[in-house]
Amino acid sequence: MDGADSVLVAAGERRIGWAARAMPVLTAIAERFAAERPLDGLRVAACLHVTAETAVLMGALKAGGAEIALAASNPLSTQDDVAEALRDYGIAVHARAGVTRDVYYRHIHQALDVAPDIVLDDGCDLVNILHTERTELLDGVSGGCEETTTGIIRLRQMAAEQALRFPVVAVNDTRTKRMFDNRYGTGQSTLDGIMRATNTLLAGKTVVVAGFGYCGRGVAERARGLGARVVVTEIDPVKALDALLQGYDVRPMVAAARVGDVFVTVTGNRDVIREEHLVLMKDGAILANAGHFDVEIDVRALDELAETVHRGVRPNTDEYVLADGRRILLLAEGRLVNLTAAEGHPAAVMDMSFSAQALAVAWLARERAVLVPGVYDVPQEVDVEVARLKLAAAGIRVDELTAEQEDYLHSWRLGS
Amino acid sequence: MDGADSVLVAAGERRIGWAARAMPVLTAIAERFAAERPLDGLRVAACLHVTAETAVLMGALKAGGAEIALAASNPLSTQDDVAEALRDYGIAVHARAGVTRDVYYRHIHQALDVAPDIVLDDGCDLVNILHTERTELLDGVSGGCEETTTGIIRLRQMAAEQALRFPVVAVNDTRTKRMFDNRYGTGQSTLDGIMRATNTLLAGKTVVVAGFGYCGRGVAERARGLGARVVVTEIDPVKALDALLQGYDVRPMVAAARVGDVFVTVTGNRDVIREEHLVLMKDGAILANAGHFDVEIDVRALDELAETVHRGVRPNTDEYVLADGRRILLLAEGRLVNLTAAEGHPAAVMDMSFSAQALAVAWLARERAVLVPGVYDVPQEVDVEVARLKLAAAGIRVDELTAEQEDYLHSWRLGS
Amino acid sequence: MDGADSVLVAAGERRIGWAARAMPVLTAIAERFAAERPLDGLRVAACLHVTAETAVLMGALKAGGAEIALAASNPLSTQDDVAEALRDYGIAVHARAGVTRDVYYRHIHQALDVAPDIVLDDGCDLVNILHTERTELLDGVSGGCEETTTGIIRLRQMAAEQALRFPVVAVNDTRTKRMFDNRYGTGQSTLDGIMRATNTLLAGKTVVVAGFGYCGRGVAERARGLGARVVVTEIDPVKALDALLQGYDVRPMVAAARVGDVFVTVTGNRDVIREEHLVLMKDGAILANAGHFDVEIDVRALDELAETVHRGVRPNTDEYVLADGRRILLLAEGRLVNLTAAEGHPAAVMDMSFSAQALAVAWLARERAVLVPGVYDVPQEVDVEVARLKLAAAGIRVDELTAEQEDYLHSWRLGS
Amino acid sequence: MDGADSVLVAAGERRIGWAARAMPVLTAIAERFAAERPLDGLRVAACLHVTAETAVLMGALKAGGAEIALAASNPLSTQDDVAEALRDYGIAVHARAGVTRDVYYRHIHQALDVAPDIVLDDGCDLVNILHTERTELLDGVSGGCEETTTGIIRLRQMAAEQALRFPVVAVNDTRTKRMFDNRYGTGQSTLDGIMRATNTLLAGKTVVVAGFGYCGRGVAERARGLGARVVVTEIDPVKALDALLQGYDVRPMVAAARVGDVFVTVTGNRDVIREEHLVLMKDGAILANAGHFDVEIDVRALDELAETVHRGVRPNTDEYVLADGRRILLLAEGRLVNLTAAEGHPAAVMDMSFSAQALAVAWLARERAVLVPGVYDVPQEVDVEVARLKLAAAGIRVDELTAEQEDYLHSWRLGS
Repeated sequence: MDGADSVLVAAGERRIGWAARAMPVLTAIAERFAAERPLDGLRVAACLHVTAETAVLMGALKAGGAEIALAASNPLSTQDDVAEALRDYGIAVHARAGVTRDVYYRHIHQALDVAPDIVLDDGCDLVNILHTERTELLDGVSGGCEETTTGIIRLRQMAAEQALRFPVVAVNDTRTKRMFDNRYGTGQSTLDGIMRATNTLLAGKTVVVAGFGYCGRGVAERARGLGARVVVTEIDPVKALDALLQGYDVRPMVAAARVGDVFVTVTGNRDVIREEHLVLMKDGAILANAGHFDVEIDVRALDELAETVHRGVRPNTDEYVLADGRRILLLAEGRLVNLTAAEGHPAAVMDMSFSAQALAVAWLARERAVLVPGVYDVPQEVDVEVARLKLAAAGIRVDELTAEQEDYLHSWRLGS
Repeated sequence: MDGADSVLVAAGERRIGWAARAMPVLTAIAERFAAERPLDGLRVAACLHVTAETAVLMGALKAGGAEIALAASNPLSTQDDVAEALRDYGIAVHARAGVTRDVYYRHIHQALDVAPDIVLDDGCDLVNILHTERTELLDGVSGGCEETTTGIIRLRQMAAEQALRFPVVAVNDTRTKRMFDNRYGTGQSTLDGIMRATNTLLAGKTVVVAGFGYCGRGVAERARGLGARVVVTEIDPVKALDALLQGYDVRPMVAAARVGDVFVTVTGNRDVIREEHLVLMKDGAILANAGHFDVEIDVRALDELAETVHRGVRPNTDEYVLADGRRILLLAEGRLVNLTAAEGHPAAVMDMSFSAQALAVAWLARERAVLVPGVYDVPQEVDVEVARLKLAAAGIRVDELTAEQEDYLHSWRLGS
Repeated sequence: MDGADSVLVAAGERRIGWAARAMPVLTAIAERFAAERPLDGLRVAACLHVTAETAVLMGALKAGGAEIALAASNPLSTQDDVAEALRDYGIAVHARAGVTRDVYYRHIHQALDVAPDIVLDDGCDLVNILHTERTELLDGVSGGCEETTTGIIRLRQMAAEQALRFPVVAVNDTRTKRMFDNRYGTGQSTLDGIMRATNTLLAGKTVVVAGFGYCGRGVAERARGLGARVVVTEIDPVKALDALLQGYDVRPMVAAARVGDVFVTVTGNRDVIREEHLVLMKDGAILANAGHFDVEIDVRALDELAETVHRGVRPNTDEYVLADGRRILLLAEGRLVNLTAAEGHPAAVMDMSFSAQALAVAWLARERAVLVPGVYDVPQEVDVEVARLKLAAAGIRVDELTAEQEDYLHSWRLGS
Repeated sequence: MDGADSVLVAAGERRIGWAARAMPVLTAIAERFAAERPLDGLRVAACLHVTAETAVLMGALKAGGAEIALAASNPLSTQDDVAEALRDYGIAVHARAGVTRDVYYRHIHQALDVAPDIVLDDGCDLVNILHTERTELLDGVSGGCEETTTGIIRLRQMAAEQALRFPVVAVNDTRTKRMFDNRYGTGQSTLDGIMRATNTLLAGKTVVVAGFGYCGRGVAERARGLGARVVVTEIDPVKALDALLQGYDVRPMVAAARVGDVFVTVTGNRDVIREEHLVLMKDGAILANAGHFDVEIDVRALDELAETVHRGVRPNTDEYVLADGRRILLLAEGRLVNLTAAEGHPAAVMDMSFSAQALAVAWLARERAVLVPGVYDVPQEVDVEVARLKLAAAGIRVDELTAEQEDYLHSWRLGS
């Protein structure tokens, strides 16, 4: 290792150590894995954000006996020092910050070259490539995990079309992941990213949140908690009604566009903010995406409307000047603002999500003989186990049912 | 009708009229039912709280063509004027405020005497009696609706034991009912009941909420919204963790008992507050139940601990004086404080719940030939329809997907 | 005493007992007064809401040696049972629920007939009459207390015009009274009154709060805490900016009128809601006043706009039907909704306010020889003493400065 | 100017431009100053944080005609690029990031060498030096402004001791500054600093806020808004009671120390967290100061307790390992976390504060002939003017009093 590398490795190890201290559940699981070796002899290909928290997950799987190849699930989120530290620890990492789209896909192919038994995905790109370009590997794959809502939507579609070739655990769909990661993690890190990028005072501002799923709810709560007036846009009447009953101002985007100071898209869909909205916005409007890929804001439309673009007026902030002089600020080029302008989910949240993932991989390893292709929920006891370990780490105790209470809940014969 | 009756009828009609103005969705459905008569020739037996909002539901079903017999689901919640107005409108009502337990059960039997095609239940008592004491009627029943979480638990148990003899729609389990009724309705009406009963300033008080299901969440949010510090107790680690992440102080009841000023049980279980907790409480502690039956607080234990009981120190408030002089205030005798001390769910919330119920009855009538015994979810389109009508009534518009967005959501083949 | 009276007395005593248990500070002061008799030989004329909490204050002053004559400060808020219990206790009470305006003023004159040394006022009516119609008594008056913000405004005006003839303590202007009474007390009781009068679900509603003083702030916080979207109207740019920064939607009334579901006036001014606003309102709009006299809502204009008025569609709720069919609901005839439809301030809040008042009366008694006419602030140590007693009653401890910290705060000579 | 300088100047100008766009009020005032030249011929010495926002204020004063010498009020907060851009603009700046204490004081002396007519201070260091070490300049000084609460405390002490030699405007004590700057600015920037330094998930954490003044209130609100449970410590019973009534958990520090995950001091006093508290803290406790100088946390005591110190485990984060293995994280070496780890107050807040300051300097220039030494409040009309300009910039309108309403407020003669 040359000098530059060893500096990188040291920096990466420090980051990983910092993350690990906030991930007591995954650390406890890693210790159990090291003793029980539930993944001995298995090859794992993973396509995840290459961050310190992911590194702790990789460490747990390696402790469990797996051989691992890791690619980045987003060209912008890779932490190069973490990647180097993982390589030093014996994990094949195919990722580098800021690579082109071509290199991004080549990295996924390189990770797949390990000929995986089990795959971990974040957005379905790796699974997609497996089913379209690397079909020769499909027979060897016994199972996978997918972490995002949008990835799960695609996988269910594939399963409905009989196109999915192995069992996949929808890690996104646990109660812990949905509630704690999507909601609290994305909530905080999105606002954190907006503050770092712009240093805007949010009190008194109008923040428009597009989408009121778990992530949108988290963003809305945090924006309100920072003193903003929050406007919610939705396409689902049930979610819209929930937002209304929580005191939010619910409007279609075309009405929200006129009043917003800050816009955050969290829908999993494309073109949520598009030309018809951009032309209505106030001077100084700030646009951020915390949803999925960089398609939620129609950046091309913004480019076409702008007479001038000032890149980097602040870190991760580009200023688009429209013909009439109005300025629109786009954060992180429309990519995930919480990953790009802040540091992604705090380690404590990833602890929940990655602990479920580690336990799900062990479950796949154990059950793969009997599982058929399809999308599986995380077994409920995994979820409860993760929550229980987390509360214990925070020093919180909960009540236990008495015998009489157990009886009461299970007997429908008792009258009123 | 004698003079007293006609006064009662007029009072009841005024109450029903007031409720109806806050129930635009159910009113719209009633108009459609009157035109389409989807329930022509059907007999319905219902066991529900006999309140003005229930009366609007009964009116919708009668408009749809049903013959109805109604009993009360709780001896304390019956509004006698509403009952009288319904009788005047041609609905057989077997209910009177404050009757004994014996009369309560006799009323349910009287409602069942109609030999129902369809039953509506709230807590599973009527369905329970059908399956144990009135089995001769079971062949005639083609379906039912159950409104409460605890009722559904019992029904699922019956279904698991092959004991359930007809299809039941779990009306409790719609997104609208859970989110809007359990959470927002119970949240407000529980605090309303506590304020009416005690006129206590909640700001600065410590409110202990036992149970963090949908109802408990609503109670916790409203207590916090009124300035209280909220402590949550739970038995489920996942819900406990959610409460923690929402900023609540999570503890076991034995630790909460020492610090609480006001206690609210919302668990669906029994003996949630029992002797071991009562002996630890502060002078002046207030106990209220907003969960299910009057078993959540162990009133018998309180009776045995008390040296003296002052009934009615305030409306719906009894004071128990313990041997050491500490005073504990029990609201509504441990029965549902939101129904007894306040007026139950605001009509606007019941509008959601009862609209789903009306549409579910029509669905049962339409599909009964093909349904087998078991517990059914409310069809999703019913739920979305209710939300859409509700938003329309509030003048709120939501976004529509563009064609490109529809495509994007349905195509897994698009890469990043 | 005849039978009806003794029933009233017993009911009043029960109410007062209930209030007293939530007023530990005033109770402690009463005990001290009984021992020290600081008011021996003084005559007090009071014009206050005749409620259970006022009765506890009267008891403390009587314990301190005062002879008391009490009139009601609002014709609608008198609790007749409390009045009767006070009479039975030896206090001259000139008040009865629901009297006409003429009788109301006669009652104030009767209270003044005691030829007071000290006066207590709530809205400045008694002081006004003293200075205009009963000037023969002015020489005997050594001081007074005034409780409301609007009363203080008048008194300062009188003082500026040299018209005020004795020293008055502005009890309204303590930190404890402003923060805890105006803000938390009025906040809760106003929403409580609206819920009792209408049983409206506040979640998802738009509540317009006119005025963002201490009371308005409290109402806005509680409305938001119950799930409403809150719009604030103001005339003071600084208060308007504060509301904006707290996340409220700030607009002029003419813009708020179109969107509100519930309107609450808390300004201390007249005609805050007037014809130009009424004509813009939505069907079903609810109007409530929690500010001062019944002039904040222009009820006359509403009367003239209405084709029909249905009185009492709910308790304390009148429905005004406009020519185009829109219905507007006026609560408590435009009088104080928190006193009329609910029970006024919770006793725990009044404990703060009335304790300051009791200590201020003792201060006036002690200092009257040296005081000149004018409006006086409550001495700061009275305020701190009240807060300290209150925290002690709640079992809360605070930190004490160390000697080094005292030094640090007092020495400007230490550098950075 | 050499190459490195011109790069710095360009970077600084970009920063200042960014700040200026969020400071519309100060920009409007600068334009007026440029036209009216109210400061022509005056020399100003300022000791302020050398940031982009300060640069906009300096620009306004220079536009008004002043000659300016600027030193830094904190050795850590200086932005070197901004300093360079100001020098390029013709302002004498004596400041450099990270200088030693000696250099810090030398810089203040150098700024004083301008022989100022008017001084601007932030923490009273410059005024202190003027009165102790540079007394020869005192005769020339006609007035000053002080921005911080702690500075004002010192100045009032000096005034009380007849030691203060010129009039000083307490810029801290306007309603706008207190409400908007202390509360909303410090609230957001403090949490921002903690997140940048640690990336900790605040939801579910216990945050202890020491001090419930305006700043503490803001920090507590934001911590709660990010999902934390907030514990408040205070020495003033009235503030403690206010915190309690806002739903906070109020305790002495010795009880808070055991439960806190994050501690923030905002008191203006020293040794708020000291050895007796440090020894009780949980492993991983985070300590931050957002109050005044670096004396609020007793860093020396922490140093003595620690066996090892790891500097820079994260940016602005040092880890102190105690003998028993517990780790305590100190942010920003105990200096202001919002200035050091984040970027200080968002420009939009500083706009309020610095606009008041600019108008106050003009007022001093105009009135100096008639003012005597002492501490002066900012004239009320300045404050209202600032709020009015700010609302206008946000597009918010407020109501105007009608003539009848003006009359009503001014006439005490109207009865009820």
